[in-house]
Amino acid sequence: MFTHTQRLQFEAKPEKPDPAYARKLQELVGGAYGEMSVMMQYLFQGWNCRMPGKYKDLIMDIATEEIGHVEMLATMVARLLEGAPATATTKMATSDPAVGAVLGGMDPQQAIVAGGAALPADSNGYPWNGRYAIASGNLLADFYANVAAEAQSRLQTARLYNMTDDPGVKDMLKFNLARDTVHQNQWLAAIEQLREDGLEGVVVPGGLEDEEHRRHAQELWHLSDGTESGAGLWASGPAPDGEHELTVLTSPQPLGDKATVPPPDPKLYATYDGSRGKPKGPVLGTETGVKGKIKDALTPDE
Amino acid sequence: MFTHTQRLQFEAKPEKPDPAYARKLQELVGGAYGEMSVMMQYLFQGWNCRMPGKYKDLIMDIATEEIGHVEMLATMVARLLEGAPATATTKMATSDPAVGAVLGGMDPQQAIVAGGAALPADSNGYPWNGRYAIASGNLLADFYANVAAEAQSRLQTARLYNMTDDPGVKDMLKFNLARDTVHQNQWLAAIEQLREDGLEGVVVPGGLEDEEHRRHAQELWHLSDGTESGAGLWASGPAPDGEHELTVLTSPQPLGDKATVPPPDPKLYATYDGSRGKPKGPVLGTETGVKGKIKDALTPDE
Amino acid sequence: MFTHTQRLQFEAKPEKPDPAYARKLQELVGGAYGEMSVMMQYLFQGWNCRMPGKYKDLIMDIATEEIGHVEMLATMVARLLEGAPATATTKMATSDPAVGAVLGGMDPQQAIVAGGAALPADSNGYPWNGRYAIASGNLLADFYANVAAEAQSRLQTARLYNMTDDPGVKDMLKFNLARDTVHQNQWLAAIEQLREDGLEGVVVPGGLEDEEHRRHAQELWHLSDGTESGAGLWASGPAPDGEHELTVLTSPQPLGDKATVPPPDPKLYATYDGSRGKPKGPVLGTETGVKGKIKDALTPDE
Amino acid sequence: MFTHTQRLQFEAKPEKPDPAYARKLQELVGGAYGEMSVMMQYLFQGWNCRMPGKYKDLIMDIATEEIGHVEMLATMVARLLEGAPATATTKMATSDPAVGAVLGGMDPQQAIVAGGAALPADSNGYPWNGRYAIASGNLLADFYANVAAEAQSRLQTARLYNMTDDPGVKDMLKFNLARDTVHQNQWLAAIEQLREDGLEGVVVPGGLEDEEHRRHAQELWHLSDGTESGAGLWASGPAPDGEHELTVLTSPQPLGDKATVPPPDPKLYATYDGSRGKPKGPVLGTETGVKGKIKDALTPDE
Amino acid sequence: MFTHTQRLQFEAKPEKPDPAYARKLQELVGGAYGEMSVMMQYLFQGWNCRMPGKYKDLIMDIATEEIGHVEMLATMVARLLEGAPATATTKMATSDPAVGAVLGGMDPQQAIVAGGAALPADSNGYPWNGRYAIASGNLLADFYANVAAEAQSRLQTARLYNMTDDPGVKDMLKFNLARDTVHQNQWLAAIEQLREDGLEGVVVPGGLEDEEHRRHAQELWHLSDGTESGAGLWASGPAPDGEHELTVLTSPQPLGDKATVPPPDPKLYATYDGSRGKPKGPVLGTETGVKGKIKDALTPDE
Amino acid sequence: MFTHTQRLQFEAKPEKPDPAYARKLQELVGGAYGEMSVMMQYLFQGWNCRMPGKYKDLIMDIATEEIGHVEMLATMVARLLEGAPATATTKMATSDPAVGAVLGGMDPQQAIVAGGAALPADSNGYPWNGRYAIASGNLLADFYANVAAEAQSRLQTARLYNMTDDPGVKDMLKFNLARDTVHQNQWLAAIEQLREDGLEGVVVPGGLEDEEHRRHAQELWHLSDGTESGAGLWASGPAPDGEHELTVLTSPQPLGDKATVPPPDPKLYATYDGSRGKPKGPVLGTETGVKGKIKDALTPDE
Repeated sequence: MFTHTQRLQFEAKPEKPDPAYARKLQELVGGAYGEMSVMMQYLFQGWNCRMPGKYKDLIMDIATEEIGHVEMLATMVARLLEGAPATATTKMATSDPAVGAVLGGMDPQQAIVAGGAALPADSNGYPWNGRYAIASGNLLADFYANVAAEAQSRLQTARLYNMTDDPGVKDMLKFNLARDTVHQNQWLAAIEQLREDGLEGVVVPGGLEDEEHRRHAQELWHLSDGTESGAGLWASGPAPDGEHELTVLTSPQPLGDKATVPPPDPKLYATYDGSRGKPKGPVLGTETGVKGKIKDALTPDE
Repeated sequence: MFTHTQRLQFEAKPEKPDPAYARKLQELVGGAYGEMSVMMQYLFQGWNCRMPGKYKDLIMDIATEEIGHVEMLATMVARLLEGAPATATTKMATSDPAVGAVLGGMDPQQAIVAGGAALPADSNGYPWNGRYAIASGNLLADFYANVAAEAQSRLQTARLYNMTDDPGVKDMLKFNLARDTVHQNQWLAAIEQLREDGLEGVVVPGGLEDEEHRRHAQELWHLSDGTESGAGLWASGPAPDGEHELTVLTSPQPLGDKATVPPPDPKLYATYDGSRGKPKGPVLGTETGVKGKIKDALTPDE
Repeated sequence: MFTHTQRLQFEAKPEKPDPAYARKLQELVGGAYGEMSVMMQYLFQGWNCRMPGKYKDLIMDIATEEIGHVEMLATMVARLLEGAPATATTKMATSDPAVGAVLGGMDPQQAIVAGGAALPADSNGYPWNGRYAIASGNLLADFYANVAAEAQSRLQTARLYNMTDDPGVKDMLKFNLARDTVHQNQWLAAIEQLREDGLEGVVVPGGLEDEEHRRHAQELWHLSDGTESGAGLWASGPAPDGEHELTVLTSPQPLGDKATVPPPDPKLYATYDGSRGKPKGPVLGTETGVKGKIKDALTPDE
Repeated sequence: MFTHTQRLQFEAKPEKPDPAYARKLQELVGGAYGEMSVMMQYLFQGWNCRMPGKYKDLIMDIATEEIGHVEMLATMVARLLEGAPATATTKMATSDPAVGAVLGGMDPQQAIVAGGAALPADSNGYPWNGRYAIASGNLLADFYANVAAEAQSRLQTARLYNMTDDPGVKDMLKFNLARDTVHQNQWLAAIEQLREDGLEGVVVPGGLEDEEHRRHAQELWHLSDGTESGAGLWASGPAPDGEHELTVLTSPQPLGDKATVPPPDPKLYATYDGSRGKPKGPVLGTETGVKGKIKDALTPDE
Repeated sequence: MFTHTQRLQFEAKPEKPDPAYARKLQELVGGAYGEMSVMMQYLFQGWNCRMPGKYKDLIMDIATEEIGHVEMLATMVARLLEGAPATATTKMATSDPAVGAVLGGMDPQQAIVAGGAALPADSNGYPWNGRYAIASGNLLADFYANVAAEAQSRLQTARLYNMTDDPGVKDMLKFNLARDTVHQNQWLAAIEQLREDGLEGVVVPGGLEDEEHRRHAQELWHLSDGTESGAGLWASGPAPDGEHELTVLTSPQPLGDKATVPPPDPKLYATYDGSRGKPKGPVLGTETGVKGKIKDALTPDE
Repeated sequence: MFTHTQRLQFEAKPEKPDPAYARKLQELVGGAYGEMSVMMQYLFQGWNCRMPGKYKDLIMDIATEEIGHVEMLATMVARLLEGAPATATTKMATSDPAVGAVLGGMDPQQAIVAGGAALPADSNGYPWNGRYAIASGNLLADFYANVAAEAQSRLQTARLYNMTDDPGVKDMLKFNLARDTVHQNQWLAAIEQLREDGLEGVVVPGGLEDEEHRRHAQELWHLSDGTESGAGLWASGPAPDGEHELTVLTSPQPLGDKATVPPPDPKLYATYDGSRGKPKGPVLGTETGVKGKIKDALTPDE
């Protein structure tokens, strides 16, 4: 359960409205790497965490903070839109280049849909969606994803920091940059902690190492004609997981046969010349039908 | 430019058709962490890479391989659907529990739309989309994302490996698992290489460290009531970047004021009692209008 | 079955082209609260209405009208794009501020995709989609949704009315505003009619009043720190449904336990320290397996 | 800013796992009318509210509660999936009808993607998206939308209540039903309050009543051949807003001309026989070009 | 403007309910090649047609018919859902294989969202969206698209025809098949008519034939290692447009240089070693800035 | 399996950067009819082709080429963005009309997300998605779709050709135009080849001609009031398939009854007055339940 204070985690006061910038900031609200993404990603990771204790607590601390980040940014967007020329007509835009420059860069939905405020969407007006948030239950996989999310987030914040000269906006972004820095560090530390605790290793998931085709777990297949891909740490020497020796397969040949697909079910009308015969009959992992199944049921299986 | 051989990178032959499993495999074809995602992600990263040389070459090698992985999986899906009871009626399903069990688990679009073959969609029929693929131009951010993608991919592959007992399917998945292992190692090695080459550090992006609010780049805000979030490596000691000392803010207080938004433009009809006055007039980063602008233009700015 | 006349329900002739405004009007064509939404919403509600008679007839009257509204708006959009500088180059845009102002505000797809005409999309180019249209079969729920849709629609139309000074556009919008007014009134009247006819009450759906936890059907949980939420009609006195007495729970405490999730299936590789044991075996609402089932089948159930 | 307790608002403990039901519950998590929708809708409405005070406080109280509802449902979903046969093979499904019945009804992504937990998606696996949440700044429009959202939500909850016989699930849903009841009442009361406070009336938005075409603000256009649409309260007598007298236009004729579109820009290659001449030249709300603009700029406009 | 009769274009009465088939039929309602697609595609094409007369009239005739097809299918879906076990619990499903077989194959949203009726979505529950409908203004391009749409539509209808044995359903589908046949023929005839009328040729669009690189308008680039692509009509002889002689480029070599991208803007933090210098300064098609522009403006341009 | 050379299929070097045009070019990268669509469409068609040999080889040749087209366009987009004023502030935009004109027309995500490069999205920032690519298994249906795709693609390319005056861009587009020309010709030739080979005819799919309602396979239903739809080749004479005689049904009457839907399941709470009785009980294509089923199983069915 959650509670809320109307005070913002950090101040979000622009010196002056800037409606074109209000559009760009939408990327941090509802973009694939915006605050709604980390908020929902961490919430679902926390709710999905199988172990009560420090990992779950860490995730829920940061998740809860991120709700407040969406709030902070939404507030900033609304303030940047104060007195915006949203209702200016095209005539005004064409008769004043300054108005024209701004109108072209605005998000029309911030005015028409939200009445001069933020939307749960990105800087091109595409709505945030749930496929952006990953919560797999495997903490190492998810913490890698969290490092990646915070990295893209700080990168986009840094780019946006360079696109404004408003001291109030910059002040808020300095806070966001800092939080993205510490969150990157925290998720990296959490990865280290998982290893210290013996819960996870380097490669995700721990398991099936003995079943996978080991030989193919070492090679770089050289399939593009750049000449230098053999020059990096990825091309020779021990792998980061300490379990493999990396190599390059310089002239890789396909290991499989030609990619043919089976004869089609005639009732589906795929174009077919009959050259490869008829499809096998339906095979459902059982060949006996219901009568056989009953018999099977009366007999111990396995 | 690309060329193609019709031979598969690795064999993809199921022992028997299994249409319910064919639906599940769609997750690896067109899911958020499926092969289409890494294929398009790496292609755009390679095309967007600013430095000719080893990084670009590495990315393009792996990107090119991934196109072949989509091919391998699409071929497997079509083979799993051979003779599938896609055109069986509900009557057949209800009169044979084996048919019923399979029909309920099938993807109807594999039959109706694709005629018994794979679709560029995930296991719930949701189409792959371009927001899944990130190519930011910052290699550290993108390599973190690549580690995360390969981790989720190997995790999902491992789960699917446990959902079949077909030796042919298992054989192909052993190859996929192995490739996901080596790709995780390679991207981790590439991160190390970026640091060795002095191109990137730990936190993304390198830059603005002196401008961000340093104090807030160290603290865990304890906003959920779990009692153990202070117990991990993320809570004290030096941060992974070697630049910060991590701490916990145990009773965090908001630093900002109440989240108020400005008076609205009356032409947008937001509900308002007038209590906070009228909005400031349009402010566009200039107060002078076109005449002033011309004057400004004739005068050196900056 | 439908028939069509090529005459528009109301005239849609702008005095002058205005391509920037043509983009904004897309919100009324294909936005979440545009004409395509009400058209499809009412059509599906009508087709889904369980009672022949006055409700179905009303819904189909208005649904049919709305198809004509999409037509009217699409025609207006094409006319606003006449002679638009869609093929003007960037050089032209930068050398004439008036062209520049307009080009920045245009929807490039209206030119590139539609050849100078309307698209089934909103003002940010996001396509209309079927999740916007609700037809639940419960008329009270749907009429509430219809009031809401017409309200948002008239609000957006009013905002757009203030963004143009073209008398032809304004004339058409005066018609749209009027239709949104009467439709709001009609759906509100239809809600009243449902109550008069004894088919529905105030709360949707009629049913389960005696099963729901009555105590929790009365309280406002005060979870944010604003000081005035207890001051409204929602906080005390009889509820609109005449069945409950509204109250405020000023210091709400969670009623549930900690949000833990069960031990994971090891084959799914969730990170887990084993501290909470193994998961229960598969439980499918039956514990007997197929043999037991056959026995059960031979015995009368329920 | 938000804080969190790990205790749930209400208990969410199923008596037994039920993976097929876990899929259905996704509708309440991430459907168009699920808890994520009301959570994000109310949060953005609260952040966008132009008046500090009782309305904003009410919205934020309920918005904050809704975050906890997503948590409650996500927890329930994970518990319903304990020991689920997610990794059962097709062979097992076909050899045990009980397993088959359940596997067909499961959401494969709950296992493959989330490791046995909830997803931010609906019961067909379609991800939640930001277009579901409306926050227009006009409180009457938004409160109508909130009534509609809670109505659809309680309707879907009631349907789901009838699809289970698990006493633990039913107990939680009794709480959800109750909350949906009180929220419907509260938003209806809030509408009444807006009227009492003189902030809004019946039709949204207050404004433009004198400009819209009054005649068309009264009529039902009888465009479908049902014979009874004239029989309801929507067809005669005073409208709910007290400002209009409702009528039926029994044989409506189109008021506009034929829906022609202008001659096309030849550079866009629309098929055209030239019969209607050439398009007017670009008209941008200005006819003067940049030189004229400068002159205009030096002369007072308006 | 449109009018409606409540009678269906053709009868839509199943002999018996069949809820699993009701899900499959959704593909024809709201799939990419379902009736909503052709309805919206033809409507927008008709509204966008630049020439009053026979083409526009044809398009509007068929467009109007398609609205009635959605109605027919939506009605069929609701009838197939009569008495469906939508509210059956998992327990019932596992205890009766017939119920289990059906429940697994149902669309849960048809019950939970629509109350037992059709949805504007496809057979995997993905909503119809506006990107499915193309109306380009070029009639030849659009008529090619219409042939393609009707072809896919008849193909899917034929597949669905083979998935039922209900005589009522089959009867309606016989009508749909017939309409898809005649519509394919009509659009093919309309293509012929465009050529007879001299409005369009074979290749879309008519234009730029003299500017395009003619040599590359003839060759098949042999980029995959299949040995027979040179054996078809596409590989030699006159092209269908009568203007080109088709050939095969058997060992195609890339004509461009290496795909390098320019040095990055440092403010965007792309990883870069500086090896290729700094980016050129901003170039906007003008090098003069505002002062130069004013001077230019006072001088005749072009 | 695929291989790659870093050389482009054709050169892609603009004379000068042009960031506003870089946005427009996104339509050819990731639009519904852009290069990603044909690339994925042809790849899935090739992988899904049921006959080894010339058709599959043709498809794979062109599919492989299209991957290189995405590469070519992505490279062009990045080059057009060199030195783009992406980090220019609103102040700069309003103080220099040339900057203003360009900034308004840019795609903010090309800078914020991609760091100055192409995105897998269209010119309105909407991501490419898998529903754009059709691969049905029926080659005639798919080749019709391919003609349509290449036609829309060349049309959009031609429009974009007219929106630039940069000789480098124009040179690349001359190549693209030529390839779209030859591909249209090739798919048309392939349709001819299918007929020559006796694999397919004119109408898709070959089949069910004798079952469909033949009478309705000939008529144009005249449902809109244009007066000239009877004047075209579609209205009389032999149909293109040589099997039907086209006619016009000038005053079409509905053939079906009123579109009523059945009484609802009370547990789903559709509004209902009981006037049409109760719904039939669940009918699942079997009336016997599990006991009967076992008996049936022991008896030969059909």
